[in-house]
Amino acid sequence: MRKLFAAAAILAIAGTGIAAAQDAPFGMQIKARQGIMAYRALQMGVLGGMAKGDVAYDAAAAQKAADNLMATVTLDASMLWPQGSDNSANPASTALAAIWADGSDIGDKATAFAEAVTAMQAAAGTDLASLQGAMGNLGGACGGCHKAFRVPSN
Amino acid sequence: MRKLFAAAAILAIAGTGIAAAQDAPFGMQIKARQGIMAYRALQMGVLGGMAKGDVAYDAAAAQKAADNLMATVTLDASMLWPQGSDNSANPASTALAAIWADGSDIGDKATAFAEAVTAMQAAAGTDLASLQGAMGNLGGACGGCHKAFRVPSN
Repeated sequence: MRKLFAAAAILAIAGTGIAAAQDAPFGMQIKARQGIMAYRALQMGVLGGMAKGDVAYDAAAAQKAADNLMATVTLDASMLWPQGSDNSANPASTALAAIWADGSDIGDKATAFAEAVTAMQAAAGTDLASLQGAMGNLGGACGGCHKAFRVPSN
Repeated sequence: MRKLFAAAAILAIAGTGIAAAQDAPFGMQIKARQGIMAYRALQMGVLGGMAKGDVAYDAAAAQKAADNLMATVTLDASMLWPQGSDNSANPASTALAAIWADGSDIGDKATAFAEAVTAMQAAAGTDLASLQGAMGNLGGACGGCHKAFRVPSN
């Protein structure tokens, strides 16, 4: 039992500072998924900067950004989107309840994103033209989900 | 060029809603790393709940949580901790500048966490006693870094 109490005490210490996020409904799930979106945005910034010519093309950096995007696709997200964790339950989220509604095509949109990331992985390290060619579908896959399932920002 | 403009326009649409986080110094990096910490906290919640007996032991769920922790260890974090992205630059972060200071042992602490997660991956799916046995080191690795390198919460 001593080991159990020690583990519980250590968990309490480790968890300090995340209590606030846990207080709001689905706070931890929302924080996690928004953080993964921010991680993706950082990678998209690398790819987009090269695609637009703001940054010199760097095959290794582009490949790494594409690989990092894929790592977020394969990351298990099964705990991150519990039913009801939309904007109406917690305004910290911009997720619309339509994600979970009957007939929602969220699964198709997730598949489209995964396919676009796969295509970017094949293109990013090849050359700038290939990266640029893959960017349209990838940006479209991001935007397709955001437009359908995110609270509009004005 | 038309393709470039289209890609830029799509990126602009895809990026809507993340602009606010980008406005603050290192906002996107901080959001990403805090989200990954929240993701870890969700997995630790699964393992800790079983270790403490709050939740019945489930070998598959425990293994999945441990594997998910490892996925965050192997996720490339090289863009997430730029020099200067500490609490003094942006209060949204609780990261202390000591992380980047001369003589910082942040690398050792990251290694200790990776090793503790590796041990948990080997233990979590075996049985409850093994999970409990691995929890002390894992919680200690979380807390070791938090105590040394995070703004204390009072």
